[in-house]
Amino acid sequence: MTKEKLLLVKVGGKVVENPEALNQLITDLSNLEGRKVLVHGGGVLATKTATALGIETTMVEGRRVTDDKMIDVVTMVYAGLVNKRVVSLLQSKGTNAIGLCGADMNVILSDKRPVKTVDYGWVGDVKKVDGKALSTLIESGVVPVLAPLTHDGQGHILNTNADTIAAETAKGLAAYYDVTLVFCFEKRGVLADANKDNSVITSLNREEYEAYKSKGVITDGMIPKLDNAFSTLEDGVCEVVITHASSLNDLTQGTHIK
Amino acid sequence: MTKEKLLLVKVGGKVVENPEALNQLITDLSNLEGRKVLVHGGGVLATKTATALGIETTMVEGRRVTDDKMIDVVTMVYAGLVNKRVVSLLQSKGTNAIGLCGADMNVILSDKRPVKTVDYGWVGDVKKVDGKALSTLIESGVVPVLAPLTHDGQGHILNTNADTIAAETAKGLAAYYDVTLVFCFEKRGVLADANKDNSVITSLNREEYEAYKSKGVITDGMIPKLDNAFSTLEDGVCEVVITHASSLNDLTQGTHIK
Repeated sequence: MTKEKLLLVKVGGKVVENPEALNQLITDLSNLEGRKVLVHGGGVLATKTATALGIETTMVEGRRVTDDKMIDVVTMVYAGLVNKRVVSLLQSKGTNAIGLCGADMNVILSDKRPVKTVDYGWVGDVKKVDGKALSTLIESGVVPVLAPLTHDGQGHILNTNADTIAAETAKGLAAYYDVTLVFCFEKRGVLADANKDNSVITSLNREEYEAYKSKGVITDGMIPKLDNAFSTLEDGVCEVVITHASSLNDLTQGTHIK
Repeated sequence: MTKEKLLLVKVGGKVVENPEALNQLITDLSNLEGRKVLVHGGGVLATKTATALGIETTMVEGRRVTDDKMIDVVTMVYAGLVNKRVVSLLQSKGTNAIGLCGADMNVILSDKRPVKTVDYGWVGDVKKVDGKALSTLIESGVVPVLAPLTHDGQGHILNTNADTIAAETAKGLAAYYDVTLVFCFEKRGVLADANKDNSVITSLNREEYEAYKSKGVITDGMIPKLDNAFSTLEDGVCEVVITHASSLNDLTQGTHIK
């Protein structure tokens, strides 16, 4: 059976929180033909809102510690403000969209992260993505817009990393579609020289990735992103592209993970 | 063609903001057989959140003036915090639910209220409910949970009265279902004596309503609610029940509008 193509795009908070970048994203996404899913972040706005509410933000290894107060803040910002802003803008371009968190239609079930050295609080590790429920929406002509929140099935919303949601959703949809997963970020791709914006590595396989890592070319924050990317290929995702949000209209650009 | 029955329940902010009342609502709603839709408010929590953010709340004739800052607050509270809390609790009882605002799947389109004597800001008057989109979700076994927000189709979220959303959604679904619309509030029904909680008027038709009004028995806040209720009957809704949220498990109680 030939599967239809599906584009799953992940954009970070920096894009959705910047009106100009957001507008371009919405336009580009609306112009892209075919089936698509959007996963968004919103961390900067969550931190700003928490501060305005007098709630302190604690990050451990780049991840937000999510106590009782913070889960309310991220639920408001991710599933409310950012998600509905994106959905209403997509509608204004004639793209029928539906905003979802993992609790909606039970699309993403997580386990609350067990406490080891750090108690991250209401943070979820994805257990199951309901690709069938999502594909039913997609086949009805709607673009699912996923906020980075899941649930535990016991009545709790769980804060969940948006890159992880994108990767796990791509895997969950791979049974139904030929999925291309696009991670948009602030660079034009994975760079061979961090100081040179035009040093984009256009194509990257596992072997080359290991070589770049051992030479210290690929470091720090890129490593979990790329580990995530390669793991989706093992689980049936066709291709992963890491690119700038403004290049969504030309996916030949960026770094292609194969 | 015989239509299936559908129960459309509207609960106000006082129920969803009280953990005990919310828990009873979720349990009762989950136990009710058949097709259902929930519409919720959240005004008290919106005001509280606005205050915590240093944003002043202005009400005119019981309606919230919704400027640029306030639309962000109500979008966060209604579509984020309250909506996802309700959805995740319903999931925990085994009831598959999906949280929506009017922008999602374009289910409720509004016009921004024209400025007459008062500029209400980002407030919407409902123009069109997509009963077909909602019925597709309902037939897939999902309970739509509607936040009191709509959109204008031009990229703006609009604050919209939850009673109005319930009434207009009931009308929009009347082509597909035999709809019973249930307004839950803090009294056991429409009272013949405001000081006596057990003076519930069990049944009310248009003629009796006019008589109660002219005698001054039904006044103030009940009048728009009842006008709303009677208008839905003219647009195909089968029955309207006004009752206490704790009586959802026994809909023979309360005031039945016919």
